[in-house]
Amino acid sequence: MKLNIAVLPGDGIGPEVTAEAVKVLKAIAMEFNHVFTFDYGLIGASAIDKDGIPLPDTSLELCKKADAILFGAIGEPKYDNDPYAKIRPEQGLLKLRKELDLFTNIRPVIAYEDLLNNSPLKRKYIKDVNICIYRELTGGIYFGDKKVSEDGNNASDICEYSRFEIERIAHMAFKAAQSRKQKLTLIDKANVLESSRLWRKVVKELASQYPDVTLDFLFIDNAAMQVITNPKQFDVILTENMFGDIISEEASVIVGSIGLLASASIGDTHAMFEPIHGTYTTARNKGIANPIAAILSAAMLLDHFGLYDEASLVREGVDKALKLHITTPDLNTKYDNISTSKVGDFIEDFINNPDETNLN
Amino acid sequence: MKLNIAVLPGDGIGPEVTAEAVKVLKAIAMEFNHVFTFDYGLIGASAIDKDGIPLPDTSLELCKKADAILFGAIGEPKYDNDPYAKIRPEQGLLKLRKELDLFTNIRPVIAYEDLLNNSPLKRKYIKDVNICIYRELTGGIYFGDKKVSEDGNNASDICEYSRFEIERIAHMAFKAAQSRKQKLTLIDKANVLESSRLWRKVVKELASQYPDVTLDFLFIDNAAMQVITNPKQFDVILTENMFGDIISEEASVIVGSIGLLASASIGDTHAMFEPIHGTYTTARNKGIANPIAAILSAAMLLDHFGLYDEASLVREGVDKALKLHITTPDLNTKYDNISTSKVGDFIEDFINNPDETNLN
Ligand SMILES: CC(C)[C@H](C(=O)O)[C@@H](O)C(=O)O
Ligand SMILES: CC(C)[C@H](C(=O)O)[C@@H](O)C(=O)O
Repeated sequence: MKLNIAVLPGDGIGPEVTAEAVKVLKAIAMEFNHVFTFDYGLIGASAIDKDGIPLPDTSLELCKKADAILFGAIGEPKYDNDPYAKIRPEQGLLKLRKELDLFTNIRPVIAYEDLLNNSPLKRKYIKDVNICIYRELTGGIYFGDKKVSEDGNNASDICEYSRFEIERIAHMAFKAAQSRKQKLTLIDKANVLESSRLWRKVVKELASQYPDVTLDFLFIDNAAMQVITNPKQFDVILTENMFGDIISEEASVIVGSIGLLASASIGDTHAMFEPIHGTYTTARNKGIANPIAAILSAAMLLDHFGLYDEASLVREGVDKALKLHITTPDLNTKYDNISTSKVGDFIEDFINNPDETNLN
Repeated sequence: MKLNIAVLPGDGIGPEVTAEAVKVLKAIAMEFNHVFTFDYGLIGASAIDKDGIPLPDTSLELCKKADAILFGAIGEPKYDNDPYAKIRPEQGLLKLRKELDLFTNIRPVIAYEDLLNNSPLKRKYIKDVNICIYRELTGGIYFGDKKVSEDGNNASDICEYSRFEIERIAHMAFKAAQSRKQKLTLIDKANVLESSRLWRKVVKELASQYPDVTLDFLFIDNAAMQVITNPKQFDVILTENMFGDIISEEASVIVGSIGLLASASIGDTHAMFEPIHGTYTTARNKGIANPIAAILSAAMLLDHFGLYDEASLVREGVDKALKLHITTPDLNTKYDNISTSKVGDFIEDFINNPDETNLN
């Protein structure tokens, strides 16, 4: 297969982890006789530094032409703490999601047997947890009208949803549930928000088309508790943009490190793959950033194109790395000094020689 | 002291847990020669059933005239799952908060030594955690304009804040931090929301008035993770209404049961005290509802009127109940069948005879 992949490494540790994902994809291409090409673009703070805007047209065009996009991370503390900044890195990512209409963000949360001890949660709560979060990504309060009064003393954001926006991701989530454990949980705040009541109404209506799926509902506050107290109850979670942002990052504690969580952002014509972690700028250029989330995002990319054997091989490589403690310090209690690129090298070696790779 | 207390038990387990809080307050009044009077009003689903509205004027008047309000819980699943219901229980609570201008909701999260094993979190993460959450309670997306399009296919909610609304609760939170560990964390989503940027701006400006307090910032998604991975870093948390709803219910996992978390909702002229848990309708009338959150809310009421010895005695009673496993099934691994009212009886006995109360 020929795949033209746009790579947007972004800020902070983005470039470091993305480099390992590219390394792994190149190994896969070699091993399976695919032709993957990689074209790089700027986004976020690094684009602002160079061009003054967070998403240059060249980067957007690159993504539009590509078969898939590999994305790193975006954000820089200097912008976060400047409430007056008119141009901010995140605008680049939000614009990209919107322009490419990447409305479904899929975030799997899987407890690895070998990492159960890394979680702050007790083993019995998290063993065998396997959740897939469907987060709406191009609507809600992220994209609604924003206002600041002239004197700067009032500010507002609108959270808005339409039936259409809810239906299209809900169908994806119902279908995912059908192929998994047939359970779908909608997370909302329908006891307070009109937009949540629309979600509940629309999703309830669609449920009759998926009679094999059990649908239930949780308020976001309750869900934020139950993701910790009883994560095993969940199969597929469906939720709006902001609640999905919160609940998925929270759910990373189950896995033991946010450095393990991959995601896919899917639209009708484009697809982007990115770790859910942020730019972790204090770790920049220290070789300590965990590349596994980026590498697993590359595996989701392979899945997206039906390259299931290839994706499985990447995941096996990750499993093996975890089992042998070939991991960055966030996960490692056994070895010091296993760097970002060493983890990538190990998985690359594994792909080249799945039967031989071992600790030495 | 003479205190005129309005009691709004509400729905679900509300009446059961509130009865125990009243029992405890009566014991305190007796022991310390205070005169506490209790006047009851309807709110929520029980008010809708009787009067067709979730907050009858008589209840509102009762609260306005009272020195303090003791509140139970509100909500009924039949309304949650009916997106067409125009009248819903929660409207009663929201109206009450707004009418009485209860803008500061204080939610302490304290890990009890005797309950560390009840948490899904490992002991070392939660030992000695003591967080106080300041949640804005009368603004934000809860109270902004809500719209539904005529065809019912679009819905929106506005999240709006003014400098004034932020300043008044921020001062409370800074002062609380001064009397605690001098650390204040603002939780927002300033990389996406205008309203969050206003929060960040205003709170940063006020910081210069509190030079002894260290101020830091976390995005809500990151905070939802860090409340679990590193709760010890927090002293006072300040946040807007919706984020406060989410983060405080999530933080209950640290304590081991949401049945332990009390709260105070304070305005310039009124004050209300309520457990943070919901109506837990499946537990209704089974005698299994944990009354401790309601009882600790009564302790916060006593504190509010400067009755510190009285509040301490209530808390000692709670500590003793926890130590001796006189608790409802959500916490109890030792005894069966300790009911809601037995827990209240034990704490009442303790207040009457602090030096003698023991297991038998
Ligand atoms: C960087 C930020 C705008 C983004 C979001 O909130 O969507 C990030 O947290 C994510 O989850 O991808
Ligand atoms: C019942 C509901 C409206 C309420 C809220 O969201 O504020 C509750 O969850 C709370 O935290 O007091």
